[in-house]
Amino acid sequence: MARLTHLNADGAARIVDVGGKPETARKAVASGRITMSETALAAISDGDAPKGDVLAAARIAGIMAAKKTADLIPLCHPLPLETVTIDFAFEQGALSVTASAALTGKTGVEMEAMTAACVALLTIYDMAKALDKGMVIDQVRLIAKDGGKSGPWRAEP
Amino acid sequence: MARLTHLNADGAARIVDVGGKPETARKAVASGRITMSETALAAISDGDAPKGDVLAAARIAGIMAAKKTADLIPLCHPLPLETVTIDFAFEQGALSVTASAALTGKTGVEMEAMTAACVALLTIYDMAKALDKGMVIDQVRLIAKDGGKSGPWRAEP
Amino acid sequence: MARLTHLNADGAARIVDVGGKPETARKAVASGRITMSETALAAISDGDAPKGDVLAAARIAGIMAAKKTADLIPLCHPLPLETVTIDFAFEQGALSVTASAALTGKTGVEMEAMTAACVALLTIYDMAKALDKGMVIDQVRLIAKDGGKSGPWRAEP
Amino acid sequence: MARLTHLNADGAARIVDVGGKPETARKAVASGRITMSETALAAISDGDAPKGDVLAAARIAGIMAAKKTADLIPLCHPLPLETVTIDFAFEQGALSVTASAALTGKTGVEMEAMTAACVALLTIYDMAKALDKGMVIDQVRLIAKDGGKSGPWRAEP
Amino acid sequence: MARLTHLNADGAARIVDVGGKPETARKAVASGRITMSETALAAISDGDAPKGDVLAAARIAGIMAAKKTADLIPLCHPLPLETVTIDFAFEQGALSVTASAALTGKTGVEMEAMTAACVALLTIYDMAKALDKGMVIDQVRLIAKDGGKSGPWRAEP
Amino acid sequence: MARLTHLNADGAARIVDVGGKPETARKAVASGRITMSETALAAISDGDAPKGDVLAAARIAGIMAAKKTADLIPLCHPLPLETVTIDFAFEQGALSVTASAALTGKTGVEMEAMTAACVALLTIYDMAKALDKGMVIDQVRLIAKDGGKSGPWRAEP
Repeated sequence: MARLTHLNADGAARIVDVGGKPETARKAVASGRITMSETALAAISDGDAPKGDVLAAARIAGIMAAKKTADLIPLCHPLPLETVTIDFAFEQGALSVTASAALTGKTGVEMEAMTAACVALLTIYDMAKALDKGMVIDQVRLIAKDGGKSGPWRAEP
Repeated sequence: MARLTHLNADGAARIVDVGGKPETARKAVASGRITMSETALAAISDGDAPKGDVLAAARIAGIMAAKKTADLIPLCHPLPLETVTIDFAFEQGALSVTASAALTGKTGVEMEAMTAACVALLTIYDMAKALDKGMVIDQVRLIAKDGGKSGPWRAEP
Repeated sequence: MARLTHLNADGAARIVDVGGKPETARKAVASGRITMSETALAAISDGDAPKGDVLAAARIAGIMAAKKTADLIPLCHPLPLETVTIDFAFEQGALSVTASAALTGKTGVEMEAMTAACVALLTIYDMAKALDKGMVIDQVRLIAKDGGKSGPWRAEP
Repeated sequence: MARLTHLNADGAARIVDVGGKPETARKAVASGRITMSETALAAISDGDAPKGDVLAAARIAGIMAAKKTADLIPLCHPLPLETVTIDFAFEQGALSVTASAALTGKTGVEMEAMTAACVALLTIYDMAKALDKGMVIDQVRLIAKDGGKSGPWRAEP
Repeated sequence: MARLTHLNADGAARIVDVGGKPETARKAVASGRITMSETALAAISDGDAPKGDVLAAARIAGIMAAKKTADLIPLCHPLPLETVTIDFAFEQGALSVTASAALTGKTGVEMEAMTAACVALLTIYDMAKALDKGMVIDQVRLIAKDGGKSGPWRAEP
Repeated sequence: MARLTHLNADGAARIVDVGGKPETARKAVASGRITMSETALAAISDGDAPKGDVLAAARIAGIMAAKKTADLIPLCHPLPLETVTIDFAFEQGALSVTASAALTGKTGVEMEAMTAACVALLTIYDMAKALDKGMVIDQVRLIAKDGGKSGPWRAEP
């Protein structure tokens, strides 16, 4: 049966040893979205106009969360990230986020991109929850992964 | 137009003043799920059998993340949480999580429950991603909220 | 001779016991500024126009730093902040910041306001340092303090 | 017009990609000071005599803050610091601090030195504020920077 | 059979609900020691003489660790500590530490005192390990606990 | 007299400069134990049976603490750990822990292994303290160290 690499032969959790792996350029992109009422969506767009603090706060929160990934996810390696970006797009009844992270290292940055996307969405939930408690964080997933032994990976559309 | 409480009249972000609000018993419950292949799901169930480290790791990660909420979400108040619980359930092609948090205080704990749910799901993603990179975190939302001036709130089914 | 309350009779550092003090409404306001070239100042104003990410990033950084004060300043008590705000103003050859913090508690929030002001200014330094490494953080000080046994205090003009 | 490297073409904040830069030996030195009453200055000197806890606490706080820089300043890269030092000097009516940081890496350590200096000064403010609330943190700036493509930089005297 | 309060009826970890407990004055004292060679012990005493940075660093580390307890120990409640103190004593072939913590709250501060003692001892290990890698951290235990429903508790001598 | 490397010639604490050291494969193993009553020991074994959350929580806490070492121990360098493992063994009247850490770098990982062991033991104390407040953390020490200029080191049996 398929085994989980984060567990040893006895089933105990561990941080997998990446000491023998070569350093390669690695990148990951994750995306996700939060569905919300038109009222909440309009308030965010509007709040975004003059000073940009709604999406700016979510962007900063996502970037900072990428740097906290190893502190949040128990078995993640601490990684010297070389770049993190967060982009938002308004959709019909939803706001979507795309987060990317990259570094030159021995292990990938999927979790950094996934964590950045989740925390950016949670921040939007926080800022709009007084208007709509029923918002739903949805479709958070890895979109692309490059570098490392396994090479490029793309999510199915 | 509806206004976002986390922005002042000029649109600048702030931590909203809750100094004048009374302390009441507050509770929040959030849920979410992660869809995955049968192979990944079976590896988690199996890994769970002897030592329980897969779900145990995700549960601990979620609980610790609840305590880090104010450090992750820029405009959240730091809160003295009185309890946090995380439960998992295996579903058809998915694993679901329910997170609850409570305290006696001046503001609610929705973000703590939402953050706990997200980080528990991210931890599962991390531990199973070698088997299935296409897993999707889905349907993360508030289920119930009690306490405070606005009283009880339940998500629509 | 005047003694430092953070040292015991032997000169050893400690977190001063505030257990016997009553909870009162407390507030503190700190300010500071960063001097910079007209080029850097113009780039910040301009960057601020469309999306607001320069000052927004500094504002979020200052707010989050206020919540980290007890983690940064060794002898500060961990405090359940009830509000934090950060405001900026463009001056001749400088950008100034005003930070305020408040809570109902047994000890004051001067350090939270001071820390928020410093970290907001450091963030501006970081974002503009490619244009001007000679920027100077200046005049960071407490402006006002309210609550507690000692009552209101105002800085001399 | 001069552009801020921390913003993309749309003005959105990001962690700048340093993946393509070579690793070089980098060092930065920052300094700053805190002005205070003779009473406060004497209490610190005196407190420093037997056990050294005043300046020792500020030194440890500054060193630890250097390591937290990427957690405080939103767009800073997490960096594997190779050394951090903090020195103090008593001046007329003030206490000055000099902080240095160094590493072999793809980006500089100016923010680590600046952050260490600010937090050391904030710690002194905290420990002496019962004697003098009017202390002012002043003249925090970069003194020297070495390494990287731009080469050595020195502050104007 | 005796049950662990940190596990629910199914054996799953949780943060125990203290919402229904009254706030009382609580205090805990923990102690421990680190055995080391006479050479290491002498270097610490000597290093302690002029500037006090060895024990001062360990003291500050212990105090700051007490404030991080809920971030380190998964099922601890975040607590608004009202005081923390750390004391050292030189013994024959060892250095001992006593840590105390107190607050007015719904749950005790044993873990804060225990964590402060451990991290103070780890810091001493770190600073002296170039002289003696064989140092042993020993006898870390709770000495006294006051407050709460169970009332005063003292360790057996 | 032997000097402490973490202090400069004046006795002031610093993070020692490792910039000139070569990167080598480094590993460290630490162990320790916690003595407890048969009742507490049985509750942990029993609690461990169905879901494994007791030792799993302590294992996760130890692993996460290894990653926080530089944030806890003032003069430790931040290190990109490549692996961390934690193992437990039931003994007569005690539970023992062995923690290992490794990386390819300029400085060793002794403190990461020691910190992981201590925090794993503290977590067990926390989870069992309702049954036995008299548990004692004992014999925490370095067992083995490999890599670096000084080469392999083993604790005396």
